[in-house]
Amino acid sequence: MAKLSAEELERRIRLVPDFPKKGILFLDVTTVFNDAEAFKSIIDTLAEKYAGQKIDHVAGVEARGLVIAAALAYRLGCGMTMIRKPGKLPADTISESYALEYGTNEIQMHKDAFKPGERVLLVDDLLATGGTMRAAISLTEKLGAKVVGVAFVVELCFLSGAEKFNGYELYSMIKRK
Amino acid sequence: MAKLSAEELERRIRLVPDFPKKGILFLDVTTVFNDAEAFKSIIDTLAEKYAGQKIDHVAGVEARGLVIAAALAYRLGCGMTMIRKPGKLPADTISESYALEYGTNEIQMHKDAFKPGERVLLVDDLLATGGTMRAAISLTEKLGAKVVGVAFVVELCFLSGAEKFNGYELYSMIKRK
Repeated sequence: MAKLSAEELERRIRLVPDFPKKGILFLDVTTVFNDAEAFKSIIDTLAEKYAGQKIDHVAGVEARGLVIAAALAYRLGCGMTMIRKPGKLPADTISESYALEYGTNEIQMHKDAFKPGERVLLVDDLLATGGTMRAAISLTEKLGAKVVGVAFVVELCFLSGAEKFNGYELYSMIKRK
Repeated sequence: MAKLSAEELERRIRLVPDFPKKGILFLDVTTVFNDAEAFKSIIDTLAEKYAGQKIDHVAGVEARGLVIAAALAYRLGCGMTMIRKPGKLPADTISESYALEYGTNEIQMHKDAFKPGERVLLVDDLLATGGTMRAAISLTEKLGAKVVGVAFVVELCFLSGAEKFNGYELYSMIKRK
Protein backbone atom coordinates (compact mmCIF):
# COMPACT_ATOMS: atom_id res chain seq x y z
CA MET A 1 0.00 0.00 0.00
CA ALA A 2 1.27 3.46 -0.92
CA LYS A 3 1.35 6.05 1.84
CA LEU A 4 -1.53 8.55 1.70
CA SER A 5 -0.88 12.28 1.66
CA ALA A 6 -1.87 14.54 4.55
CA GLU A 7 -4.61 16.00 2.34
CA GLU A 8 -6.09 12.57 1.61
CA LEU A 9 -5.87 11.58 5.30
CA GLU A 10 -7.67 14.77 6.26
CA ARG A 11 -10.48 13.91 3.83
CA ARG A 12 -10.92 10.55 5.55
CA ILE A 13 -11.52 12.10 9.01
CA ARG A 14 -15.24 12.25 9.77
CA LEU A 15 -16.56 15.64 10.86
CA VAL A 16 -19.30 15.38 13.50
CA PRO A 17 -21.17 18.63 14.26
CA ASP A 18 -22.25 19.42 17.83
CA PHE A 19 -20.19 16.73 19.60
CA PRO A 20 -19.55 16.51 22.51
CA LYS A 21 -21.69 19.66 22.79
CA LYS A 22 -23.51 22.19 20.60
CA GLY A 23 -21.24 24.37 18.51
CA ILE A 24 -18.25 22.00 18.51
CA LEU A 25 -17.21 20.39 15.21
CA PHE A 26 -15.63 17.11 16.32
CA LEU A 27 -12.87 15.53 14.21
CA ASP A 28 -13.55 11.81 14.40
CA VAL A 29 -10.31 9.97 13.61
CA THR A 30 -11.89 6.56 14.27
CA THR A 31 -12.70 6.51 10.53
CA VAL A 32 -8.96 6.79 9.84
CA PHE A 33 -8.07 4.04 12.36
CA ASN A 34 -10.77 1.79 10.89
CA ASP A 35 -9.40 2.21 7.34
CA ALA A 36 -6.42 -0.11 6.77
CA GLU A 37 -4.71 2.14 4.23
CA ALA A 38 -5.17 5.34 6.26
CA PHE A 39 -4.15 3.74 9.56
CA LYS A 40 -0.98 2.30 8.05
CA SER A 41 -0.22 5.67 6.48
CA ILE A 42 -0.35 7.64 9.72
CA ILE A 43 1.78 5.09 11.59
CA ASP A 44 4.34 4.79 8.77
CA THR A 45 4.58 8.59 8.45
CA LEU A 46 5.28 8.92 12.17
CA ALA A 47 7.69 5.97 12.13
CA GLU A 48 9.75 7.48 9.32
CA LYS A 49 9.94 10.75 11.23
CA TYR A 50 11.18 9.19 14.49
CA ALA A 51 13.21 6.23 13.21
CA GLY A 52 16.84 6.50 14.33
CA GLN A 53 15.99 8.68 17.33
CA LYS A 54 16.59 5.83 19.81
CA ILE A 55 13.15 6.10 21.40
CA ASP A 56 12.60 3.88 24.46
CA HIS A 57 8.84 4.41 24.87
CA VAL A 58 5.93 5.85 22.94
CA ALA A 59 3.29 7.12 25.37
CA GLY A 60 -0.32 7.94 24.50
CA VAL A 61 -3.18 9.50 26.39
CA GLU A 62 -6.45 7.56 26.87
CA ALA A 63 -8.22 6.70 24.63
CA ARG A 64 -7.40 7.63 21.02
CA GLY A 65 -3.79 8.42 21.89
CA LEU A 66 -3.36 4.82 23.03
CA VAL A 67 -4.20 3.56 19.55
CA ILE A 68 -1.52 5.66 17.88
CA ALA A 69 1.06 5.01 20.61
CA ALA A 70 0.53 1.24 20.48
CA ALA A 71 0.93 0.83 16.73
CA LEU A 72 3.86 3.25 16.59
CA ALA A 73 5.66 1.63 19.54
CA TYR A 74 5.30 -1.75 17.87
CA ARG A 75 6.61 -0.35 14.58
CA LEU A 76 9.59 1.35 16.27
CA GLY A 77 10.34 -1.68 18.46
CA CYS A 78 9.95 0.15 21.75
CA GLY A 79 7.69 0.02 24.82
CA MET A 80 4.16 1.43 24.86
CA THR A 81 3.08 3.48 27.87
CA MET A 82 -0.49 4.21 28.93
CA ILE A 83 -1.39 7.65 30.29
CA ARG A 84 -4.82 7.35 31.86
CA LYS A 85 -7.60 9.09 33.71
CA PRO A 86 -7.48 8.95 37.53
CA GLY A 87 -8.11 5.63 39.24
CA LYS A 88 -7.53 3.43 36.20
CA LEU A 89 -3.88 2.43 36.64
CA PRO A 90 -3.50 -0.22 39.35
CA ALA A 91 0.00 0.37 40.75
CA ASP A 92 1.68 3.50 42.22
CA THR A 93 1.06 6.53 40.03
CA ILE A 94 2.02 10.16 39.60
CA SER A 95 -0.65 12.70 38.62
CA GLU A 96 -0.86 16.01 36.83
CA SER A 97 -3.83 18.37 36.72
CA TYR A 98 -4.55 20.87 33.97
CA ALA A 99 -7.11 23.59 33.35
CA LEU A 100 -10.16 23.16 31.14
CA GLU A 101 -12.54 25.87 29.96
CA TYR A 102 -14.55 25.15 33.12
CA GLY A 103 -12.78 23.29 35.94
CA THR A 104 -9.77 20.98 35.76
CA ASN A 105 -8.83 17.55 34.50
CA GLU A 106 -6.20 15.07 35.66
CA ILE A 107 -4.09 12.34 34.05
CA GLN A 108 -1.89 9.67 35.60
CA MET A 109 1.08 7.50 34.74
CA HIS A 110 2.68 4.62 36.61
CA LYS A 111 5.64 5.77 38.74
CA ASP A 112 7.88 3.12 37.20
CA ALA A 113 6.82 3.75 33.59
CA PHE A 114 10.13 5.42 32.69
CA LYS A 115 13.65 5.28 34.11
CA PRO A 116 15.64 8.52 34.39
CA GLY A 117 17.27 9.38 31.08
CA GLU A 118 14.99 7.25 28.92
CA ARG A 119 13.84 8.81 25.65
CA VAL A 120 10.09 9.22 25.26
CA LEU A 121 7.86 10.20 22.35
CA LEU A 122 4.39 11.52 23.30
CA VAL A 123 1.51 11.14 20.82
CA ASP A 124 -2.16 12.02 20.59
CA ASP A 125 -4.75 12.33 17.84
CA LEU A 126 -5.57 16.01 18.17
CA LEU A 127 -3.79 19.19 19.25
CA ALA A 128 -6.48 21.62 20.38
CA THR A 129 -5.47 23.90 23.28
CA GLY A 130 -2.67 21.48 24.26
CA GLY A 131 -3.48 21.17 27.97
CA THR A 132 -3.53 17.40 28.10
CA MET A 133 -0.26 17.00 26.25
CA ARG A 134 1.42 19.66 28.38
CA ALA A 135 0.41 17.62 31.44
CA ALA A 136 1.82 14.48 29.79
CA ILE A 137 5.16 16.28 29.34
CA SER A 138 5.15 17.18 33.04
CA LEU A 139 4.52 13.57 34.04
CA THR A 140 7.33 12.36 31.80
CA GLU A 141 9.81 14.90 33.14
CA LYS A 142 8.82 14.21 36.77
CA LEU A 143 10.19 10.71 36.21
CA GLY A 144 13.45 12.13 34.85
CA ALA A 145 12.83 10.93 31.29
CA LYS A 146 13.49 13.05 28.20
CA VAL A 147 10.68 14.14 25.85
CA VAL A 148 12.19 13.52 22.40
CA GLY A 149 9.10 14.77 20.58
CA VAL A 150 5.40 15.52 20.75
CA ALA A 151 3.35 14.32 17.77
CA PHE A 152 -0.27 14.72 16.66
CA VAL A 153 -2.28 13.48 13.72
CA VAL A 154 -4.21 16.78 13.52
CA GLU A 155 -3.48 20.28 14.79
CA LEU A 156 -6.27 22.86 15.05
CA CYS A 157 -4.03 25.83 14.28
CA PHE A 158 -6.68 28.47 15.10
CA LEU A 159 -6.52 27.43 18.78
CA SER A 160 -2.77 28.22 18.98
CA GLY A 161 -2.03 25.16 21.11
CA ALA A 162 1.46 24.94 19.58
CA GLU A 163 2.52 27.90 21.74
CA LYS A 164 2.47 25.60 24.77
CA PHE A 165 5.31 23.51 23.31
CA ASN A 166 8.13 26.02 22.95
CA GLY A 167 11.42 24.20 23.45
CA TYR A 168 9.95 20.85 22.37
CA GLU A 169 10.08 19.20 18.98
CA LEU A 170 6.43 19.43 17.88
CA TYR A 171 5.05 17.64 14.82
CA SER A 172 1.51 17.67 13.39
CA MET A 173 0.71 15.59 10.33
CA ILE A 174 -2.40 17.57 9.33
CA LYS A 175 -2.73 21.29 10.04
CA ARG A 176 -6.23 22.75 9.96
CA LYS A 177 -6.36 26.53 9.68
CA MET B 1 14.64 -9.60 19.40
CA ALA B 2 13.65 -13.22 20.00
CA LYS B 3 10.05 -13.94 20.87
CA LEU B 4 9.43 -14.56 24.59
CA SER B 5 7.65 -17.68 25.80
CA ALA B 6 4.21 -17.55 27.42
CA GLU B 7 5.88 -18.42 30.74
CA GLU B 8 8.30 -15.51 30.49
CA LEU B 9 5.50 -13.13 29.44
CA GLU B 10 3.45 -14.24 32.43
CA ARG B 11 6.37 -13.44 34.74
CA ARG B 12 6.47 -9.90 33.36
CA ILE B 13 2.83 -9.17 34.25
CA ARG B 14 2.63 -7.21 37.50
CA LEU B 15 0.29 -8.61 40.13
CA VAL B 16 -1.50 -5.92 42.14
CA PRO B 17 -3.39 -7.13 45.23
CA ASP B 18 -6.72 -5.53 46.18
CA PHE B 19 -7.32 -3.65 42.91
CA PRO B 20 -9.86 -2.39 41.95
CA LYS B 21 -11.26 -3.64 45.27
CA LYS B 22 -10.25 -5.73 48.27
CA GLY B 23 -9.74 -9.40 47.53
CA ILE B 24 -9.10 -9.01 43.79
CA LEU B 25 -5.61 -9.83 42.48
CA PHE B 26 -5.29 -7.56 39.44
CA LEU B 27 -3.12 -8.66 36.50
CA ASP B 28 -1.46 -5.47 35.33
CA VAL B 29 -0.39 -5.94 31.70
CA THR B 30 0.84 -2.34 31.41
CA THR B 31 4.24 -3.71 32.49
CA VAL B 32 4.18 -5.97 29.41
CA PHE B 33 3.12 -3.14 27.08
CA ASN B 34 5.82 -0.89 28.53
CA ASP B 35 8.54 -3.50 27.91
CA ALA B 36 9.68 -3.40 24.25
CA GLU B 37 10.63 -7.08 24.08
CA ALA B 38 7.44 -8.31 25.78
CA PHE B 39 5.14 -6.01 23.78
CA LYS B 40 6.68 -7.11 20.48
CA SER B 41 6.39 -10.75 21.58
CA ILE B 42 2.66 -10.63 22.28
CA ILE B 43 1.89 -8.83 19.03
CA ASP B 44 4.12 -11.11 16.94
CA THR B 45 2.62 -14.22 18.54
CA LEU B 46 -0.90 -13.02 17.70
CA ALA B 47 0.16 -11.94 14.21
CA GLU B 48 1.63 -15.36 13.41
CA LYS B 49 -1.56 -17.00 14.58
CA TYR B 50 -3.87 -14.86 12.44
CA ALA B 51 -1.70 -14.18 9.36
CA GLY B 52 -3.33 -15.53 6.21
CA GLN B 53 -6.83 -15.36 7.66
CA LYS B 54 -7.78 -12.32 5.54
CA ILE B 55 -8.80 -10.20 8.50
CA ASP B 56 -10.37 -6.82 7.63
CA HIS B 57 -10.43 -5.30 11.13
CA VAL B 58 -8.99 -5.95 14.56
CA ALA B 59 -11.32 -4.53 17.22
CA GLY B 60 -10.42 -3.89 20.85
CA VAL B 61 -12.38 -2.86 23.91
CA GLU B 62 -11.44 0.34 25.78
CA ALA B 63 -8.83 0.77 27.17
CA ARG B 64 -6.22 -2.05 27.27
CA GLY B 65 -7.87 -3.91 24.39
CA LEU B 66 -7.26 -0.86 22.20
CA VAL B 67 -3.52 -1.16 22.72
CA ILE B 68 -3.41 -4.77 21.52
CA ALA B 69 -5.87 -4.18 18.68
CA ALA B 70 -3.94 -1.17 17.38
CA ALA B 71 -0.53 -2.80 17.21
CA LEU B 72 -1.93 -6.04 15.80
CA ALA B 73 -4.04 -4.26 13.16
CA TYR B 74 -0.95 -2.34 12.07
CA ARG B 75 1.08 -5.55 11.91
CA LEU B 76 -1.60 -7.41 9.93
CA GLY B 77 -2.23 -4.45 7.62
CA CYS B 78 -5.90 -4.08 8.47
CA GLY B 79 -8.20 -1.51 10.07
CA MET B 80 -8.38 -0.92 13.83
CA THR B 81 -11.80 -0.53 15.42
CA MET B 82 -12.55 1.06 18.79
CA ILE B 83 -15.20 -0.46 21.05
CA ARG B 84 -15.94 2.08 23.74
CA LYS B 85 -17.96 2.93 26.80
CA PRO B 86 -21.27 4.79 26.24
CA GLY B 87 -21.15 8.39 25.05
CA LYS B 88 -17.55 8.33 23.82
CA LEU B 89 -17.99 7.60 20.10
CA PRO B 90 -19.18 10.70 18.23
CA ALA B 91 -21.21 9.32 15.30
CA ASP B 92 -24.17 6.88 15.17
CA THR B 93 -23.56 3.85 17.36
CA ILE B 94 -24.99 0.47 18.27
CA SER B 95 -24.92 -0.67 21.91
CA GLU B 96 -24.87 -3.89 23.84
CA SER B 97 -25.42 -4.35 27.59
CA TYR B 98 -24.07 -7.20 29.68
CA ALA B 99 -24.44 -8.35 33.26
CA LEU B 100 -21.85 -7.66 35.97
CA GLU B 101 -21.73 -9.15 39.47
CA TYR B 102 -23.85 -6.17 40.53
CA GLY B 103 -25.72 -4.28 37.82
CA THR B 104 -24.95 -4.01 34.11
CA ASN B 105 -22.39 -2.47 31.80
CA GLU B 106 -22.63 -1.27 28.20
CA ILE B 107 -20.28 -0.97 25.24
CA GLN B 108 -20.70 0.75 21.89
CA MET B 109 -19.37 0.61 18.35
CA HIS B 110 -19.93 2.92 15.39
CA LYS B 111 -22.74 1.67 13.13
CA ASP B 112 -20.51 1.93 10.08
CA ALA B 113 -17.48 0.24 11.69
CA PHE B 114 -17.92 -2.97 9.68
CA LYS B 115 -19.63 -3.81 6.38
CA PRO B 116 -21.66 -7.03 6.13
CA GLY B 117 -19.38 -9.99 5.46
CA GLU B 118 -16.17 -8.34 6.69
CA ARG B 119 -13.87 -10.54 8.75
CA VAL B 120 -13.18 -9.29 12.27
CA LEU B 121 -10.76 -10.38 15.00
CA LEU B 122 -11.70 -9.32 18.56
CA VAL B 123 -8.95 -8.89 21.15
CA ASP B 124 -8.61 -7.96 24.81
CA ASP B 125 -5.99 -8.30 27.51
CA LEU B 126 -7.85 -10.54 29.93
CA LEU B 127 -10.53 -13.23 29.75
CA ALA B 128 -12.25 -13.28 33.15
CA THR B 129 -15.99 -14.07 33.01
CA GLY B 130 -16.13 -13.09 29.33
CA GLY B 131 -19.13 -10.75 29.50
CA THR B 132 -17.48 -7.83 27.75
CA MET B 133 -16.15 -9.92 24.88
CA ARG B 134 -19.48 -11.68 24.45
CA ALA B 135 -21.06 -8.23 24.06
CA ALA B 136 -18.37 -7.30 21.52
CA ILE B 137 -19.28 -10.41 19.48
CA SER B 138 -22.95 -9.35 19.53
CA LEU B 139 -22.06 -5.88 18.28
CA THR B 140 -19.95 -7.31 15.47
CA GLU B 141 -22.66 -9.73 14.36
CA LYS B 142 -25.37 -7.05 14.53
CA LEU B 143 -23.46 -5.31 11.74
CA GLY B 144 -23.38 -8.52 9.70
CA ALA B 145 -19.62 -9.00 10.05
CA LYS B 146 -18.00 -12.36 10.78
CA VAL B 147 -16.06 -13.00 14.01
CA VAL B 148 -12.96 -14.85 12.76
CA GLY B 149 -11.50 -15.22 16.25
CA VAL B 150 -11.46 -14.00 19.83
CA ALA B 151 -8.00 -13.55 21.38
CA PHE B 152 -6.70 -12.71 24.84
CA VAL B 153 -3.26 -12.25 26.33
CA VAL B 154 -4.33 -13.93 29.60
CA GLU B 155 -7.17 -16.30 30.46
CA LEU B 156 -8.19 -16.82 34.10
CA CYS B 157 -9.20 -20.46 33.63
CA PHE B 158 -10.76 -20.81 37.10
CA LEU B 159 -13.52 -18.37 36.07
CA SER B 160 -14.60 -20.61 33.15
CA GLY B 161 -15.14 -17.65 30.83
CA ALA B 162 -14.21 -19.81 27.84
CA GLU B 163 -17.61 -21.51 28.07
CA LYS B 164 -19.20 -18.32 26.72
CA PHE B 165 -17.37 -18.76 23.40
CA ASN B 166 -18.63 -22.12 22.14
CA GLY B 167 -18.69 -22.03 18.36
CA TYR B 168 -15.99 -19.34 18.18
CA GLU B 169 -12.29 -19.76 17.64
CA LEU B 170 -10.91 -18.77 21.08
CA TYR B 171 -7.20 -18.23 21.77
CA SER B 172 -5.44 -17.29 25.01
CA MET B 173 -1.70 -16.79 25.07
CA ILE B 174 -1.30 -17.33 28.83
CA LYS B 175 -3.59 -19.65 30.78
CA ARG B 176 -3.69 -19.15 34.55
CA LYS B 177 -5.17 -22.07 36.48
